Amino acid sequence: MTNEDLVIGRNAVTETLKAGRSVNKILVAKGNNDGSIKKILALAKDLKIIVEFVERQKLDKICGGERHQGIIAQVAAIQYSSVEEILALAASKNEPPFIILLDELEDPHNFGAILRTADAVGVHGVIIPKRRSVSLNSTVAKTSAGAIEYVKVAQVTNVAQTLKNLREENLKIVGGDMSGENIFGADLSGGIVLIIGNEGKGIRRLTRENCDLLVKIPMRGKINSLNASVAGAVLMYEVFKQRNF
Amino acid sequence: MTNEDLVIGRNAVTETLKAGRSVNKILVAKGNNDGSIKKILALAKDLKIIVEFVERQKLDKICGGERHQGIIAQVAAIQYSSVEEILALAASKNEPPFIILLDELEDPHNFGAILRTADAVGVHGVIIPKRRSVSLNSTVAKTSAGAIEYVKVAQVTNVAQTLKNLREENLKIVGGDMSGENIFGADLSGGIVLIIGNEGKGIRRLTRENCDLLVKIPMRGKINSLNASVAGAVLMYEVFKQRNF
Repeated sequence: MTNEDLVIGRNAVTETLKAGRSVNKILVAKGNNDGSIKKILALAKDLKIIVEFVERQKLDKICGGERHQGIIAQVAAIQYSSVEEILALAASKNEPPFIILLDELEDPHNFGAILRTADAVGVHGVIIPKRRSVSLNSTVAKTSAGAIEYVKVAQVTNVAQTLKNLREENLKIVGGDMSGENIFGADLSGGIVLIIGNEGKGIRRLTRENCDLLVKIPMRGKINSLNASVAGAVLMYEVFKQRNF
Repeated sequence: MTNEDLVIGRNAVTETLKAGRSVNKILVAKGNNDGSIKKILALAKDLKIIVEFVERQKLDKICGGERHQGIIAQVAAIQYSSVEEILALAASKNEPPFIILLDELEDPHNFGAILRTADAVGVHGVIIPKRRSVSLNSTVAKTSAGAIEYVKVAQVTNVAQTLKNLREENLKIVGGDMSGENIFGADLSGGIVLIIGNEGKGIRRLTRENCDLLVKIPMRGKINSLNASVAGAVLMYEVFKQRNF
Protein backbone atom coordinates (compact mmCIF):
# COMPACT_ATOMS: atom_id res chain seq x y z
CA MET A 1 0.00 0.00 0.00
CA THR A 2 1.11 3.54 -0.73
CA ASN A 3 0.22 6.45 1.52
CA GLU A 4 -2.56 7.43 -0.86
CA ASP A 5 -5.26 5.20 -2.25
CA LEU A 6 -7.84 5.57 -4.96
CA VAL A 7 -11.55 5.13 -4.43
CA ILE A 8 -13.16 4.52 -7.81
CA GLY A 9 -16.78 4.88 -8.89
CA ARG A 10 -19.90 6.59 -7.58
CA ASN A 11 -21.05 4.19 -4.87
CA ALA A 12 -17.57 3.76 -3.49
CA VAL A 13 -16.89 7.54 -3.39
CA THR A 14 -20.29 8.19 -1.79
CA GLU A 15 -19.69 5.62 0.95
CA THR A 16 -16.19 6.97 1.53
CA LEU A 17 -17.58 10.45 2.10
CA LYS A 18 -20.44 9.20 4.30
CA ALA A 19 -18.01 7.17 6.39
CA GLY A 20 -16.12 10.35 7.17
CA ARG A 21 -12.89 9.01 5.79
CA SER A 22 -10.08 11.47 5.16
CA VAL A 23 -10.37 12.40 1.47
CA ASN A 24 -7.52 14.37 -0.05
CA LYS A 25 -9.24 15.29 -3.32
CA ILE A 26 -12.10 14.28 -5.62
CA LEU A 27 -11.57 14.15 -9.39
CA VAL A 28 -14.62 14.39 -11.67
CA ALA A 29 -14.68 13.96 -15.46
CA LYS A 30 -15.71 17.21 -17.19
CA GLY A 31 -19.27 17.22 -18.48
CA ASN A 32 -20.49 14.80 -15.82
CA ASN A 33 -23.35 16.43 -13.96
CA ASP A 34 -26.23 14.04 -13.66
CA GLY A 35 -28.09 13.36 -10.43
CA SER A 36 -25.76 11.04 -8.59
CA ILE A 37 -22.66 13.12 -9.35
CA LYS A 38 -24.47 16.26 -8.17
CA LYS A 39 -25.30 14.56 -4.89
CA ILE A 40 -21.67 13.63 -4.37
CA LEU A 41 -20.54 17.16 -5.19
CA ALA A 42 -23.03 18.62 -2.71
CA LEU A 43 -21.75 16.23 -0.06
CA ALA A 44 -18.15 17.14 -0.88
CA LYS A 45 -18.98 20.85 -0.60
CA ASP A 46 -20.50 20.32 2.86
CA LEU A 47 -17.38 18.47 3.91
CA LYS A 48 -15.10 21.15 2.38
CA ILE A 49 -13.33 18.62 0.19
CA ILE A 50 -11.41 19.84 -2.85
CA VAL A 51 -13.06 18.88 -6.17
CA GLU A 52 -11.15 19.07 -9.43
CA PHE A 53 -12.71 18.72 -12.90
CA VAL A 54 -10.46 16.87 -15.33
CA GLU A 55 -10.60 15.29 -18.77
CA ARG A 56 -12.17 11.81 -18.79
CA GLN A 57 -8.93 10.47 -20.32
CA LYS A 58 -7.05 11.50 -17.21
CA LEU A 59 -9.36 9.39 -15.05
CA ASP A 60 -9.02 6.48 -17.49
CA LYS A 61 -5.26 6.69 -17.12
CA ILE A 62 -5.27 6.99 -13.32
CA CYS A 63 -7.64 4.02 -13.03
CA GLY A 64 -5.68 1.85 -15.45
CA GLY A 65 -8.72 0.69 -17.36
CA GLU A 66 -11.04 0.14 -14.43
CA ARG A 67 -14.56 1.58 -14.86
CA HIS A 68 -14.69 4.82 -12.86
CA GLN A 69 -18.14 6.22 -13.83
CA GLY A 70 -16.59 9.68 -14.08
CA ILE A 71 -15.47 10.07 -10.50
CA ILE A 72 -12.66 9.05 -8.17
CA ALA A 73 -11.44 10.11 -4.77
CA GLN A 74 -7.86 10.23 -3.56
CA VAL A 75 -7.79 9.21 0.07
CA ALA A 76 -5.34 8.45 2.80
CA ALA A 77 -4.48 4.77 2.71
CA ILE A 78 -6.81 2.63 4.79
CA GLN A 79 -5.41 1.79 8.19
CA TYR A 80 -5.28 -1.81 9.27
CA SER A 81 -6.77 -2.79 12.60
CA SER A 82 -5.39 -5.36 15.02
CA VAL A 83 -6.87 -8.66 16.18
CA GLU A 84 -7.24 -7.07 19.63
CA GLU A 85 -9.34 -4.24 18.18
CA ILE A 86 -11.59 -6.77 16.43
CA LEU A 87 -12.14 -8.68 19.69
CA ALA A 88 -12.74 -5.39 21.52
CA LEU A 89 -15.41 -4.42 18.99
CA ALA A 90 -17.27 -7.70 19.59
CA ALA A 91 -16.99 -7.19 23.36
CA SER A 92 -18.28 -3.61 23.12
CA LYS A 93 -21.35 -4.89 21.27
CA ASN A 94 -21.77 -7.69 23.78
CA GLU A 95 -21.69 -10.27 20.96
CA PRO A 96 -19.65 -13.47 20.66
CA PRO A 97 -16.86 -12.66 18.18
CA PHE A 98 -17.48 -13.45 14.51
CA ILE A 99 -14.18 -13.28 12.65
CA ILE A 100 -13.27 -14.22 9.08
CA LEU A 101 -9.75 -15.40 8.27
CA LEU A 102 -8.72 -15.38 4.61
CA ASP A 103 -5.97 -17.97 4.18
CA GLU A 104 -3.90 -16.64 1.26
CA LEU A 105 -6.84 -15.38 -0.78
CA GLU A 106 -5.42 -13.82 -3.97
CA ASP A 107 -8.12 -12.03 -5.94
CA PRO A 108 -8.95 -8.46 -4.86
CA HIS A 109 -12.47 -8.80 -6.36
CA ASN A 110 -13.11 -11.76 -4.08
CA PHE A 111 -11.71 -9.86 -1.10
CA GLY A 112 -13.97 -6.88 -1.86
CA ALA A 113 -17.06 -9.05 -2.26
CA ILE A 114 -16.26 -10.88 0.98
CA LEU A 115 -15.93 -7.57 2.84
CA ARG A 116 -19.35 -6.56 1.47
CA THR A 117 -20.93 -9.77 2.74
CA ALA A 118 -18.99 -9.51 6.01
CA ASP A 119 -20.58 -6.11 6.61
CA ALA A 120 -24.03 -7.53 5.88
CA VAL A 121 -23.76 -10.40 8.36
CA GLY A 122 -22.19 -8.42 11.18
CA VAL A 123 -18.66 -9.80 11.08
CA HIS A 124 -16.46 -7.97 13.62
CA GLY A 125 -13.32 -8.18 11.55
CA VAL A 126 -11.35 -9.94 8.84
CA ILE A 127 -7.84 -11.31 9.35
CA ILE A 128 -5.39 -11.75 6.48
CA PRO A 129 -1.81 -13.01 6.50
CA LYS A 130 0.88 -10.42 5.75
CA ARG A 131 2.52 -12.65 3.15
CA ARG A 132 1.10 -14.22 -0.02
CA SER A 133 -2.27 -12.54 0.43
CA VAL A 134 -4.29 -9.90 -1.29
CA SER A 135 -4.09 -6.61 0.66
CA LEU A 136 -6.35 -3.57 0.92
CA ASN A 137 -6.16 -1.66 -2.35
CA SER A 138 -8.39 0.35 -4.66
CA THR A 139 -9.83 -2.71 -6.43
CA VAL A 140 -10.82 -4.18 -3.07
CA ALA A 141 -12.32 -0.83 -2.06
CA LYS A 142 -14.40 -0.57 -5.22
CA THR A 143 -15.63 -4.18 -5.20
CA SER A 144 -16.53 -3.85 -1.54
CA ALA A 145 -19.02 -1.09 -2.50
CA GLY A 146 -17.90 0.87 0.55
CA ALA A 147 -17.78 -1.99 3.06
CA ILE A 148 -14.03 -1.49 3.35
CA GLU A 149 -14.86 1.62 5.36
CA TYR A 150 -16.83 -0.32 7.95
CA VAL A 151 -15.22 -3.74 8.33
CA LYS A 152 -12.01 -3.96 10.34
CA VAL A 153 -9.13 -5.77 8.64
CA ALA A 154 -6.08 -7.00 10.54
CA GLN A 155 -2.86 -8.36 9.07
CA VAL A 156 -1.00 -11.08 10.96
CA THR A 157 2.45 -12.56 10.48
CA ASN A 158 1.71 -16.06 11.74
CA VAL A 159 -1.72 -17.51 11.03
CA ALA A 160 -1.21 -20.70 13.05
CA GLN A 161 -0.15 -18.73 16.15
CA THR A 162 -3.07 -16.31 15.71
CA LEU A 163 -5.50 -19.24 15.60
CA LYS A 164 -3.98 -20.72 18.75
CA ASN A 165 -4.40 -17.40 20.54
CA LEU A 166 -8.00 -17.09 19.40
CA ARG A 167 -8.81 -20.62 20.57
CA GLU A 168 -7.56 -19.57 24.00
CA GLU A 169 -10.17 -16.80 23.83
CA ASN A 170 -12.74 -19.63 23.49
CA LEU A 171 -13.40 -19.06 19.81
CA LYS A 172 -14.25 -22.06 17.67
CA ILE A 173 -11.94 -22.36 14.64
CA VAL A 174 -13.97 -23.48 11.60
CA GLY A 175 -12.42 -24.04 8.17
CA GLY A 176 -14.27 -24.28 4.86
CA ASP A 177 -12.88 -27.46 3.30
CA MET A 178 -14.21 -30.12 0.92
CA SER A 179 -13.17 -32.86 3.37
CA GLY A 180 -15.38 -31.40 6.10
CA GLU A 181 -18.89 -32.17 7.33
CA ASN A 182 -21.99 -30.66 5.74
CA ILE A 183 -22.28 -27.01 6.82
CA PHE A 184 -26.06 -27.36 6.93
CA GLY A 185 -26.30 -29.13 10.25
CA ALA A 186 -22.97 -28.07 11.76
CA ASP A 187 -22.98 -26.23 15.09
CA LEU A 188 -21.67 -22.75 14.33
CA SER A 189 -22.97 -21.00 17.44
CA GLY A 190 -20.80 -18.97 19.81
CA GLY A 191 -17.58 -17.12 19.12
CA ILE A 192 -16.17 -18.24 15.80
CA VAL A 193 -13.28 -17.81 13.38
CA LEU A 194 -14.45 -18.84 9.90
CA ILE A 195 -11.58 -19.60 7.51
CA ILE A 196 -11.89 -19.18 3.74
CA GLY A 197 -9.01 -20.57 1.71
CA ASN A 198 -7.17 -19.69 -1.47
CA GLU A 199 -9.16 -19.68 -4.73
CA GLY A 200 -7.31 -22.63 -6.22
CA LYS A 201 -5.64 -24.40 -3.34
CA GLY A 202 -8.11 -23.96 -0.49
CA ILE A 203 -6.92 -23.88 3.11
CA ARG A 204 -3.26 -24.68 3.81
CA ARG A 205 -2.41 -27.87 5.67
CA LEU A 206 -1.00 -26.07 8.71
CA THR A 207 -4.09 -23.89 8.94
CA ARG A 208 -6.36 -26.92 8.56
CA GLU A 209 -4.57 -28.65 11.42
CA ASN A 210 -5.46 -25.74 13.65
CA CYS A 211 -9.19 -26.05 12.99
CA ASP A 212 -11.70 -27.42 15.51
CA LEU A 213 -14.14 -28.20 12.74
CA LEU A 214 -14.06 -28.44 8.95
CA VAL A 215 -17.26 -27.75 7.02
CA LYS A 216 -18.10 -28.18 3.38
CA ILE A 217 -20.80 -26.69 1.20
CA PRO A 218 -22.64 -29.58 -0.45
CA MET A 219 -22.57 -29.54 -4.26
CA ARG A 220 -24.58 -31.65 -6.68
CA GLY A 221 -23.28 -30.51 -10.04
CA LYS A 222 -20.45 -31.33 -12.40
CA ILE A 223 -18.14 -28.49 -11.34
CA ASN A 224 -16.47 -29.25 -8.04
CA SER A 225 -15.91 -25.78 -6.60
CA LEU A 226 -17.64 -22.46 -6.07
CA ASN A 227 -16.27 -18.98 -6.56
CA ALA A 228 -14.41 -18.03 -3.35
CA SER A 229 -16.60 -15.03 -2.57
CA VAL A 230 -19.74 -17.10 -3.21
CA ALA A 231 -18.51 -19.93 -0.98
CA GLY A 232 -17.60 -17.36 1.66
CA ALA A 233 -21.10 -15.87 1.50
CA VAL A 234 -22.86 -19.23 1.89
CA LEU A 235 -20.65 -20.04 4.89
CA MET A 236 -21.07 -16.60 6.47
CA TYR A 237 -24.84 -16.62 6.07
CA GLU A 238 -25.06 -20.02 7.75
CA VAL A 239 -23.24 -18.58 10.77
CA PHE A 240 -25.46 -15.47 10.60
CA LYS A 241 -28.62 -17.59 10.65
CA GLN A 242 -27.52 -19.56 13.68
CA ARG A 243 -26.80 -16.28 15.48
CA ASN A 244 -29.99 -14.45 14.56
CA PHE A 245 -32.85 -16.87 13.88
CA MET B 1 -22.90 -13.69 -30.14
CA THR B 2 -20.71 -14.47 -33.09
CA ASN B 3 -20.49 -17.94 -34.55
CA GLU B 4 -17.23 -18.53 -32.75
CA ASP B 5 -16.53 -17.98 -29.07
CA LEU B 6 -13.39 -17.93 -26.99
CA VAL B 7 -12.85 -20.11 -23.99
CA ILE B 8 -10.07 -18.59 -21.89
CA GLY B 9 -7.88 -20.14 -19.23
CA ARG B 10 -6.91 -23.63 -18.12
CA ASN B 11 -9.96 -24.67 -16.09
CA ALA B 12 -12.39 -23.36 -18.66
CA VAL B 13 -10.58 -25.07 -21.58
CA THR B 14 -10.36 -28.34 -19.65
CA GLU B 15 -14.08 -28.34 -18.84
CA THR B 16 -14.91 -27.45 -22.44
CA LEU B 17 -12.98 -30.47 -23.67
CA LYS B 18 -14.43 -32.77 -21.02
CA ALA B 19 -17.95 -31.64 -21.87
CA GLY B 20 -17.42 -32.78 -25.43
CA ARG B 21 -18.10 -29.37 -26.83
CA SER B 22 -17.17 -28.70 -30.43
CA VAL B 23 -13.73 -27.08 -30.30
CA ASN B 24 -12.39 -25.57 -33.50
CA LYS B 25 -8.83 -24.98 -32.33
CA ILE B 26 -6.69 -24.61 -29.20
CA LEU B 27 -4.03 -21.90 -28.99
CA VAL B 28 -1.17 -22.32 -26.51
CA ALA B 29 1.51 -19.76 -25.65
CA LYS B 30 4.95 -21.00 -26.69
CA GLY B 31 7.11 -22.21 -23.79
CA ASN B 32 4.12 -23.25 -21.72
CA ASN B 33 4.52 -26.90 -20.82
CA ASP B 34 3.87 -27.43 -17.15
CA GLY B 35 1.60 -30.13 -15.77
CA SER B 36 -1.84 -28.73 -16.34
CA ILE B 37 -1.08 -27.61 -19.91
CA LYS B 38 0.34 -31.07 -20.68
CA LYS B 39 -2.86 -32.67 -19.43
CA ILE B 40 -4.95 -30.44 -21.68
CA LEU B 41 -2.73 -31.20 -24.67
CA ALA B 42 -3.03 -34.95 -24.06
CA LEU B 43 -6.80 -34.59 -23.88
CA ALA B 44 -6.82 -32.53 -27.08
CA LYS B 45 -4.72 -35.17 -28.83
CA ASP B 46 -7.17 -37.90 -27.83
CA LEU B 47 -10.00 -35.79 -29.17
CA LYS B 48 -8.09 -35.02 -32.39
CA ILE B 49 -8.36 -31.27 -31.83
CA ILE B 50 -5.96 -28.95 -33.63
CA VAL B 51 -3.40 -27.29 -31.31
CA GLU B 52 -1.41 -24.27 -32.43
CA PHE B 53 1.55 -22.79 -30.54
CA VAL B 54 1.69 -19.01 -30.74
CA GLU B 55 3.51 -16.09 -29.14
CA ARG B 56 2.09 -15.09 -25.75
CA GLN B 57 1.49 -11.59 -27.15
CA LYS B 58 -0.94 -13.02 -29.67
CA LEU B 59 -3.02 -14.54 -26.87
CA ASP B 60 -2.86 -11.26 -24.94
CA LYS B 61 -4.26 -9.48 -27.97
CA ILE B 62 -7.01 -12.01 -28.68
CA CYS B 63 -8.11 -11.93 -25.04
CA GLY B 64 -8.08 -8.15 -24.82
CA GLY B 65 -6.27 -8.04 -21.51
CA GLU B 66 -8.09 -10.89 -19.81
CA ARG B 67 -5.82 -13.37 -18.00
CA HIS B 68 -5.51 -16.44 -20.22
CA GLN B 69 -2.92 -18.54 -18.34
CA GLY B 70 -1.28 -19.39 -21.67
CA ILE B 71 -4.19 -21.19 -23.27
CA ILE B 72 -7.44 -20.51 -25.09
CA ALA B 73 -9.86 -22.54 -27.18
CA GLN B 74 -11.88 -21.34 -30.13
CA VAL B 75 -15.26 -23.01 -30.04
CA ALA B 76 -18.57 -22.94 -31.79
CA ALA B 77 -20.83 -20.43 -30.09
CA ILE B 78 -22.83 -21.94 -27.25
CA GLN B 79 -26.33 -22.87 -28.24
CA TYR B 80 -29.20 -21.55 -26.23
CA SER B 81 -31.80 -23.97 -24.92
CA SER B 82 -35.53 -23.33 -24.67
CA VAL B 83 -37.76 -23.11 -21.61
CA GLU B 84 -39.39 -26.34 -22.79
CA GLU B 85 -36.03 -28.12 -22.78
CA ILE B 86 -35.38 -26.90 -19.24
CA LEU B 87 -38.75 -28.24 -18.05
CA ALA B 88 -38.13 -31.50 -19.89
CA LEU B 89 -34.78 -31.92 -18.12
CA ALA B 90 -36.46 -31.56 -14.72
CA ALA B 91 -39.15 -34.06 -15.76
CA SER B 92 -36.57 -36.56 -17.00
CA LYS B 93 -34.86 -36.41 -13.60
CA ASN B 94 -38.20 -36.70 -11.85
CA GLU B 95 -37.49 -33.50 -9.91
CA PRO B 96 -39.70 -30.43 -9.41
CA PRO B 97 -38.28 -27.77 -11.73
CA PHE B 98 -35.71 -25.37 -10.26
CA ILE B 99 -35.26 -22.45 -12.65
CA ILE B 100 -33.34 -19.18 -12.27
CA LEU B 101 -34.51 -16.07 -14.11
CA LEU B 102 -32.04 -13.20 -14.41
CA ASP B 103 -34.04 -10.00 -14.84
CA GLU B 104 -31.73 -7.74 -16.86
CA LEU B 105 -28.52 -8.76 -15.13
CA GLU B 106 -25.66 -6.80 -16.76
CA ASP B 107 -22.31 -8.04 -15.55
CA PRO B 108 -20.87 -11.12 -17.31
CA HIS B 109 -18.79 -11.94 -14.21
CA ASN B 110 -21.97 -12.13 -12.15
CA PHE B 111 -23.63 -14.27 -14.83
CA GLY B 112 -20.67 -16.66 -14.89
CA ALA B 113 -20.56 -16.95 -11.10
CA ILE B 114 -24.33 -17.55 -10.99
CA LEU B 115 -24.01 -20.36 -13.58
CA ARG B 116 -21.30 -21.92 -11.43
CA THR B 117 -23.54 -21.86 -8.35
CA ALA B 118 -26.53 -23.00 -10.44
CA ASP B 119 -24.57 -26.10 -11.46
CA ALA B 120 -23.69 -26.78 -7.82
CA VAL B 121 -27.28 -26.62 -6.54
CA GLY B 122 -28.83 -28.63 -9.39
CA VAL B 123 -30.66 -25.85 -11.21
CA HIS B 124 -32.31 -27.21 -14.38
CA GLY B 125 -31.85 -24.04 -16.37
CA VAL B 126 -31.40 -20.28 -16.40
CA ILE B 127 -33.69 -17.91 -18.29
CA ILE B 128 -32.53 -14.49 -19.49
CA PRO B 129 -34.41 -11.81 -21.46
CA LYS B 130 -33.25 -11.25 -25.03
CA ARG B 131 -33.03 -7.50 -24.54
CA ARG B 132 -31.02 -5.45 -22.02
CA SER B 133 -29.37 -8.52 -20.57
CA VAL B 134 -25.92 -9.99 -20.45
CA SER B 135 -25.64 -12.87 -22.93
CA LEU B 136 -23.44 -15.94 -23.15
CA ASN B 137 -19.93 -14.80 -24.07
CA SER B 138 -16.33 -15.69 -23.33
CA THR B 139 -16.20 -13.73 -20.06
CA VAL B 140 -19.27 -15.61 -18.83
CA ALA B 141 -17.69 -18.88 -19.94
CA LYS B 142 -14.46 -18.19 -18.08
CA THR B 143 -16.08 -16.93 -14.88
CA SER B 144 -18.40 -19.92 -14.89
CA ALA B 145 -15.33 -22.19 -14.59
CA GLY B 146 -16.93 -24.56 -17.08
CA ALA B 147 -20.50 -24.53 -15.72
CA ILE B 148 -21.65 -22.87 -18.93
CA GLU B 149 -21.20 -26.30 -20.54
CA TYR B 150 -23.61 -27.98 -18.17
CA VAL B 151 -26.31 -25.48 -17.27
CA LYS B 152 -29.02 -24.84 -19.87
CA VAL B 153 -29.65 -21.17 -20.71
CA ALA B 154 -32.79 -20.00 -22.51
CA GLN B 155 -33.46 -16.54 -23.92
CA VAL B 156 -37.02 -15.22 -23.88
CA THR B 157 -38.60 -12.18 -25.51
CA ASN B 158 -41.26 -11.50 -22.92
CA VAL B 159 -40.40 -12.18 -19.28
CA ALA B 160 -43.89 -11.45 -17.92
CA GLN B 161 -45.51 -13.87 -20.38
CA THR B 162 -42.90 -16.54 -19.62
CA LEU B 163 -43.64 -16.23 -15.90
CA LYS B 164 -47.38 -16.57 -16.54
CA ASN B 165 -46.77 -19.73 -18.56
CA LEU B 166 -44.54 -21.17 -15.85
CA ARG B 167 -47.14 -20.46 -13.17
CA GLU B 168 -49.59 -22.49 -15.23
CA GLU B 169 -47.08 -25.33 -14.97
CA ASN B 170 -47.54 -25.01 -11.18
CA LEU B 171 -44.19 -23.39 -10.56
CA LYS B 172 -43.96 -20.87 -7.73
CA ILE B 173 -42.54 -17.53 -8.90
CA VAL B 174 -40.18 -16.14 -6.24
CA GLY B 175 -38.37 -12.81 -6.59
CA GLY B 176 -35.38 -11.63 -4.59
CA ASP B 177 -36.39 -8.14 -3.44
CA MET B 178 -35.62 -5.96 -0.44
CA SER B 179 -39.34 -5.43 0.17
CA GLY B 180 -39.94 -9.17 0.56
CA GLU B 181 -40.15 -11.47 3.56
CA ASN B 182 -37.09 -13.01 5.22
CA ILE B 183 -35.81 -15.83 2.98
CA PHE B 184 -34.86 -17.81 6.08
CA GLY B 185 -38.31 -19.07 6.93
CA ALA B 186 -39.95 -18.76 3.52
CA ASP B 187 -41.48 -21.87 1.93
CA LEU B 188 -39.38 -22.56 -1.16
CA SER B 189 -40.37 -26.18 -1.69
CA GLY B 190 -41.77 -27.57 -4.94
CA GLY B 191 -41.24 -26.34 -8.49
CA ILE B 192 -39.76 -22.84 -8.40
CA VAL B 193 -38.61 -19.94 -10.57
CA LEU B 194 -36.15 -17.84 -8.56
CA ILE B 195 -35.67 -14.33 -9.95
CA ILE B 196 -32.46 -12.36 -9.47
CA GLY B 197 -32.61 -8.71 -10.52
CA ASN B 198 -30.28 -6.17 -12.06
CA GLU B 199 -27.12 -5.24 -10.11
CA GLY B 200 -28.24 -1.68 -9.47
CA LYS B 201 -31.97 -1.60 -10.01
CA GLY B 202 -33.11 -4.99 -8.77
CA ILE B 203 -36.18 -6.67 -10.22
CA ARG B 204 -38.37 -4.62 -12.61
CA ARG B 205 -41.85 -3.58 -11.48
CA LEU B 206 -43.61 -5.68 -14.11
CA THR B 207 -41.58 -8.74 -13.14
CA ARG B 208 -42.23 -8.13 -9.47
CA GLU B 209 -45.97 -7.99 -10.11
CA ASN B 210 -45.75 -11.47 -11.58
CA CYS B 211 -44.22 -12.95 -8.45
CA ASP B 212 -46.10 -15.19 -6.01
CA LEU B 213 -43.62 -14.38 -3.28
CA LEU B 214 -40.87 -11.83 -2.68
CA VAL B 215 -38.00 -12.77 -0.42
CA LYS B 216 -35.17 -10.72 0.99
CA ILE B 217 -31.81 -11.65 2.40
CA PRO B 218 -31.56 -10.08 5.85
CA MET B 219 -28.64 -7.66 6.28
CA ARG B 220 -27.35 -6.11 9.47
CA GLY B 221 -24.55 -3.89 8.23
CA LYS B 222 -24.12 -0.37 6.90
CA ILE B 223 -24.10 -1.30 3.19
CA ASN B 224 -27.60 -2.05 1.93
CA SER B 225 -26.94 -4.53 -0.87
CA LEU B 226 -24.92 -7.61 -1.69
CA ASN B 227 -23.03 -8.43 -4.87
CA ALA B 228 -25.58 -9.94 -7.31
CA SER B 229 -23.80 -13.27 -7.64
CA VAL B 230 -23.44 -13.49 -3.86
CA ALA B 231 -27.12 -12.67 -3.31
CA GLY B 232 -28.02 -15.23 -5.97
CA ALA B 233 -25.94 -17.87 -4.22
CA VAL B 234 -27.52 -17.27 -0.81
CA LEU B 235 -31.00 -17.50 -2.39
CA MET B 236 -30.15 -20.59 -4.46
CA TYR B 237 -28.63 -22.41 -1.50
CA GLU B 238 -31.74 -21.75 0.58
CA VAL B 239 -33.84 -23.45 -2.12
CA PHE B 240 -31.26 -26.24 -2.35
CA LYS B 241 -31.45 -26.88 1.39
CA GLN B 242 -35.22 -27.11 1.40
CA ARG B 243 -34.99 -29.63 -1.46
CA ASN B 244 -32.26 -31.80 -0.05
CA PHE B 245 -32.15 -31.64 3.74
